[in-house]
Amino acid sequence: MRITDARTLVCSPGRNFVTLLIETDRGLRGYGDATLNGRELAVASYLDDHVLPLLIGRDATEIEDIWHSLYKGAYWRRGPVTMTAIGAVDVALWDLKGKLLDTPVYNLLGGRARRGVTVYGHANGSTIDGAIAAARGYIDMGYRAVRLQSGLPGLEQPYGVGRGDLYYEPAAPDHPIEETFEPGPYLRGVPQLFERARAELGWEVELLHDAHHRLTPREAAQLGKALEPYQLFWLEDPVPAEAQESLRLVRHHTVTPIAIGEVFNTIQDAHQLIGEQLLDYIRTTVAHAGGLTHLQRIAHLAELYHVRTACHGPTDLSPVNLGAALHFQTAVHNFGLQEYMRHPEEAHEVFRVGYWLEEGMLHVSDSPGLGVEVDEERAADFPYQRAYLPVARRWDGTVHSW
Amino acid sequence: MRITDARTLVCSPGRNFVTLLIETDRGLRGYGDATLNGRELAVASYLDDHVLPLLIGRDATEIEDIWHSLYKGAYWRRGPVTMTAIGAVDVALWDLKGKLLDTPVYNLLGGRARRGVTVYGHANGSTIDGAIAAARGYIDMGYRAVRLQSGLPGLEQPYGVGRGDLYYEPAAPDHPIEETFEPGPYLRGVPQLFERARAELGWEVELLHDAHHRLTPREAAQLGKALEPYQLFWLEDPVPAEAQESLRLVRHHTVTPIAIGEVFNTIQDAHQLIGEQLLDYIRTTVAHAGGLTHLQRIAHLAELYHVRTACHGPTDLSPVNLGAALHFQTAVHNFGLQEYMRHPEEAHEVFRVGYWLEEGMLHVSDSPGLGVEVDEERAADFPYQRAYLPVARRWDGTVHSW
Amino acid sequence: MRITDARTLVCSPGRNFVTLLIETDRGLRGYGDATLNGRELAVASYLDDHVLPLLIGRDATEIEDIWHSLYKGAYWRRGPVTMTAIGAVDVALWDLKGKLLDTPVYNLLGGRARRGVTVYGHANGSTIDGAIAAARGYIDMGYRAVRLQSGLPGLEQPYGVGRGDLYYEPAAPDHPIEETFEPGPYLRGVPQLFERARAELGWEVELLHDAHHRLTPREAAQLGKALEPYQLFWLEDPVPAEAQESLRLVRHHTVTPIAIGEVFNTIQDAHQLIGEQLLDYIRTTVAHAGGLTHLQRIAHLAELYHVRTACHGPTDLSPVNLGAALHFQTAVHNFGLQEYMRHPEEAHEVFRVGYWLEEGMLHVSDSPGLGVEVDEERAADFPYQRAYLPVARRWDGTVHSW
Amino acid sequence: MRITDARTLVCSPGRNFVTLLIETDRGLRGYGDATLNGRELAVASYLDDHVLPLLIGRDATEIEDIWHSLYKGAYWRRGPVTMTAIGAVDVALWDLKGKLLDTPVYNLLGGRARRGVTVYGHANGSTIDGAIAAARGYIDMGYRAVRLQSGLPGLEQPYGVGRGDLYYEPAAPDHPIEETFEPGPYLRGVPQLFERARAELGWEVELLHDAHHRLTPREAAQLGKALEPYQLFWLEDPVPAEAQESLRLVRHHTVTPIAIGEVFNTIQDAHQLIGEQLLDYIRTTVAHAGGLTHLQRIAHLAELYHVRTACHGPTDLSPVNLGAALHFQTAVHNFGLQEYMRHPEEAHEVFRVGYWLEEGMLHVSDSPGLGVEVDEERAADFPYQRAYLPVARRWDGTVHSW
Repeated sequence: MRITDARTLVCSPGRNFVTLLIETDRGLRGYGDATLNGRELAVASYLDDHVLPLLIGRDATEIEDIWHSLYKGAYWRRGPVTMTAIGAVDVALWDLKGKLLDTPVYNLLGGRARRGVTVYGHANGSTIDGAIAAARGYIDMGYRAVRLQSGLPGLEQPYGVGRGDLYYEPAAPDHPIEETFEPGPYLRGVPQLFERARAELGWEVELLHDAHHRLTPREAAQLGKALEPYQLFWLEDPVPAEAQESLRLVRHHTVTPIAIGEVFNTIQDAHQLIGEQLLDYIRTTVAHAGGLTHLQRIAHLAELYHVRTACHGPTDLSPVNLGAALHFQTAVHNFGLQEYMRHPEEAHEVFRVGYWLEEGMLHVSDSPGLGVEVDEERAADFPYQRAYLPVARRWDGTVHSW
Repeated sequence: MRITDARTLVCSPGRNFVTLLIETDRGLRGYGDATLNGRELAVASYLDDHVLPLLIGRDATEIEDIWHSLYKGAYWRRGPVTMTAIGAVDVALWDLKGKLLDTPVYNLLGGRARRGVTVYGHANGSTIDGAIAAARGYIDMGYRAVRLQSGLPGLEQPYGVGRGDLYYEPAAPDHPIEETFEPGPYLRGVPQLFERARAELGWEVELLHDAHHRLTPREAAQLGKALEPYQLFWLEDPVPAEAQESLRLVRHHTVTPIAIGEVFNTIQDAHQLIGEQLLDYIRTTVAHAGGLTHLQRIAHLAELYHVRTACHGPTDLSPVNLGAALHFQTAVHNFGLQEYMRHPEEAHEVFRVGYWLEEGMLHVSDSPGLGVEVDEERAADFPYQRAYLPVARRWDGTVHSW
Repeated sequence: MRITDARTLVCSPGRNFVTLLIETDRGLRGYGDATLNGRELAVASYLDDHVLPLLIGRDATEIEDIWHSLYKGAYWRRGPVTMTAIGAVDVALWDLKGKLLDTPVYNLLGGRARRGVTVYGHANGSTIDGAIAAARGYIDMGYRAVRLQSGLPGLEQPYGVGRGDLYYEPAAPDHPIEETFEPGPYLRGVPQLFERARAELGWEVELLHDAHHRLTPREAAQLGKALEPYQLFWLEDPVPAEAQESLRLVRHHTVTPIAIGEVFNTIQDAHQLIGEQLLDYIRTTVAHAGGLTHLQRIAHLAELYHVRTACHGPTDLSPVNLGAALHFQTAVHNFGLQEYMRHPEEAHEVFRVGYWLEEGMLHVSDSPGLGVEVDEERAADFPYQRAYLPVARRWDGTVHSW
Repeated sequence: MRITDARTLVCSPGRNFVTLLIETDRGLRGYGDATLNGRELAVASYLDDHVLPLLIGRDATEIEDIWHSLYKGAYWRRGPVTMTAIGAVDVALWDLKGKLLDTPVYNLLGGRARRGVTVYGHANGSTIDGAIAAARGYIDMGYRAVRLQSGLPGLEQPYGVGRGDLYYEPAAPDHPIEETFEPGPYLRGVPQLFERARAELGWEVELLHDAHHRLTPREAAQLGKALEPYQLFWLEDPVPAEAQESLRLVRHHTVTPIAIGEVFNTIQDAHQLIGEQLLDYIRTTVAHAGGLTHLQRIAHLAELYHVRTACHGPTDLSPVNLGAALHFQTAVHNFGLQEYMRHPEEAHEVFRVGYWLEEGMLHVSDSPGLGVEVDEERAADFPYQRAYLPVARRWDGTVHSW
């Protein structure tokens, strides 16, 4: 099966997405998600201007060879733009291989290992009350796990609290929103949020929280200890983790479960974290980690060390990525939990998906490939709009991790 | 695709083999190799008496789920018998999946990553001259790599020197042969063998040697240093490696490449060796390491640490295993070198293989599945004969690693 | 004393057992237990088809030589089937040596080091109340230590809670029972069990709990911390321990004593755990660890690091194994505690034992050898019945450690 | 000083360059190099489509704040595209600050620490003779250090040997050239090259060699040992270093100096290498490591561990980068050596440089800023041409690091 054409499709049905389309001489088309929130066109250029010309004429089934040609052949390795571009190619090739062999992708990855992919929803509130009310909404919908983020006394712009209900979109057009973060009120407030949550929501629902890289290791250790009575399912991204040993201090002080890695792009970004057992859930997702081929390596390493997969899954990746993640999570042994934010309705007019929510789980269909199809014509109705993720600053103006 | 029947076939066309046959309601049959040289019937019993009844009625495509059911469900984990039995099931299921999807197994493992699988042959001689003459024979046949083993002054029964030319069979019926090993003459003689080999065979051919677990770490370090001038492709199994840290001393003293692991059965047997970079080639093979599903995990870990795959491949595994190994080696990125001993001709009357030797490489065909078929009727002409691998003793009678 | 005959006896008096019988030219018969729960016939085949022919004519007193011949001579080392087979031979040879010298085995192992072997019983309940009632029963019988397992809110199928009272048999015929495990309710429930137990049973009795490999290191750390107020004698098998460094995290966070290793088969499976002081009790038992010869090495290493012996001792090993374990525990210096489940009554019709319970201790008689004799005729009344240990799955269907 | 305009200029005077131009309300223009060889337009898009709109109106002197806004504000951190884009902005801002203060950039970085920046040239030959002849040419020109690369027996396409003499350009239009690499002939040949070089060129000139990420750690250790008699100034990029601990093995076995890091983009890519003293020279350059602001941090960490700077400096970065590197190397305390490849003559028609070669050193002028000016009109004569760096494959077709 030779590749005859490859191109990106940039559209904005509710938010921006970059989609890779690969066509073959067998009349099949494969899709990959190349969306990098706020830096979309750089990935599109990486693909269109540099990578895609190399694919024409290649045998689409030689995924391993193409992957390493793009990774080693670029010379300049790693990083979000590079790995997202490679990931889009990889996912499109797996989609094509499934379609060529007339089988869902999860069957190529070892076959079904569970009946569905348990997800968690985002319960956000500008106040603690609001967050708890939102959590109730998810529980009523059958969710078994909910992430809680809320405004706190002295911290009115917390990460994760946005403009909508089921739909949260932090990116803003033209210029990034600048949010203020101070660790003091945050560290004092979050335990109050979860004390209230356990009191009102009980213990059957799994509760999660995202610190979004904003703490130092010591602050994260303090928060983790303070949250132990509420038995979180995980505390996410407690500290920036470019230097993986940063997590040692956190891990030393608390048994609160740790989830990290949505900004990771390769196994090297995580191998020390995993090997030293500094985390419990690895959040790296398909699109940003070089596709299924590379994410499988991360998952296999994680399995050896009792770490479970938990692909990043908000709407800043397209349904193509969510589909790929769901096939992956259906087949991988050491699955943990899947993030699920609902895409805006316009997105589903462009991306026709075969997965559905039931019993707090997402389920993939048995259609060949990923089971996600893209309507190029409809996509043309939603032109790209530049948008930026927020920037955080401390009270005194210091730039801080958002 | 439901499993309707599963049974083992024990036969001895030239040597003993245990083959697993799994039949499905789609009329397809998958094969796995369950041969454990000298302990064959224990694996057959493990399968027939315990594992196979569990497979009837199961969906043959759910490889990941079946694998973990057999591994975790056995409760008593690891070890050669257990992992060979699981490996046979796993390989048969991949064979079936390839046949169901009408594609060679390597295509399911990521696709072709090279044009063929470079192999090495066994050049054995009761004297150094004999070994060098045998090596010339391989070079003339187009082999690019040759393993040299020979009788040495004071060491008349070296490992690897047998009764035939292309065919070497260490196992003996009724009782194991007892061989004598002494480290002194061995450590003095092996460098002479390779000095002569480089002088007579030149530098274009890659040369290998197998110490077969017979040395202490210090002895292995001494041998590795002594062999550095001859630039071996690898020194195999220098020390018994149940305690993986044993290799630290070897690695500390020499840059001679180290290959280890044909007796390993799981990733835990090798993960410290790999993570501490104590070896260069991991010799674990498909059949003895729980099949393709688990060997892939070992290979992925090895890739992270620059270690390459080098599946154990003598005739004490059947052509079904060699076929599986070749599909694996065709697709895995971090391939190193493949061992190749020719099976006796009778074996190929039972096992019809689709791989062939050309340019010093083995090549797999593009037929669906593994491309190895088994003639059950012909197999019936070769009944099982109990046979044992040799036992080694020191001069004073002490049992030694063979 | 030459070996004249060796054979296995497979019977099912209440449950399946594989017993090795070795006959000698001195008219003495030695017994070894070769039972591997759920994989019995594979061990029987390993012995009958491969190992036993090698024993005929050998001097039965050369235990060390025979042990290493079987271990190193098999070439494929380690694992439950191999080591159980070797263990059966080893124990039978010690039994014979005792009988030859007309002395109990413990006397050959260094002599009596204590007056009896303190045991713990299994107090199981489908509810916390039930478990506590069962514990009272043991205390009333004079037990000084009791293991508590119970159903918990949200976890109706806990490990260890079975069909009978004193007799618990998890294995089921035909197909394994599938149990559901979720860490959330388990982690919340177990501390409640022990809070109640201490409140009702007081502090004089030692309390134990078995997590049965079901937790991740972090989960185990959390549980260990939560159980500290109740001062358990040990928390058993908190995590799967194939990768021994997994226990580091547990050990870091809690001083709750840790017992591990009933699934271990060789010293290499435990040497890092012991050397890094990651456990307090080593649970490896005679039959599964290559017999008394090899278990002694494990105990000696453990002594160096303040770790005590605690042989696995449920009814899935025969009275022959329990007898061997009791001789071992009577003589070994660093004894900790012995598990004791009563065998079904039928079992004692086949296996005539010389040990008895008194003062919460098991005592071995001074009869020669192990003091356990086997009635082959009675055994014939109890033919083997295939049975399987359960398989555990998570709520979503994922295979989990049972 | 407010930023009023910012744009990229993509041109190809001899080879492709991406240049960032930032204009201010003070009528000053700053330049930064954003060239990422073979992936140029992705960086241009990253800047034009995402980063540059954020700069308009900002105070150009707030370099630290802008740097962190772009790094942390992108959310998706690290990698060559991201860090090259940030680096271009950073360098242009330093150029502007110099111009604003009417002072050379080195003066802002702490002031002159040496009278010039010693460089090495590339002596390439398709044969050993050719390379040595080329080296003589450099020595005759006053170079004190020369890098030697040559064709070797059995290795006709070595890295670094190209089409020209002083000018070497590996990138090719349309499709990457595929080169073949085999470690055997390479490891045997390189010591011959340096044996000849020392015999013919003597010991006064410093000799370097670049292994270009093609070796495993063990192979690199072997080469390092073999090269010790020739006392290289450094052996460059012996192994791929995404997993920094890979260098431990190399470092253990040889005292040959090690230079690494031209593909690194952040301090996290190198901090373990530096902290464990696994290298001697850090090759990371200004443009690819987030600019002067971030490279300074790398240099400061390196100084603590006796590691010296050695910025990557071939022609695949523009004279703007070389100018920035020279200012950096003029001021940094722990300077080691600077790579210097002459740009093609057309490049100097677009980029007017103020640095010059004398006594084997490059010297920067005292003109304000970087001392490199860009002729936009002339640049328009050289439109971008897509070009790719080569891909390397092993003999059997396996993709290898180029």
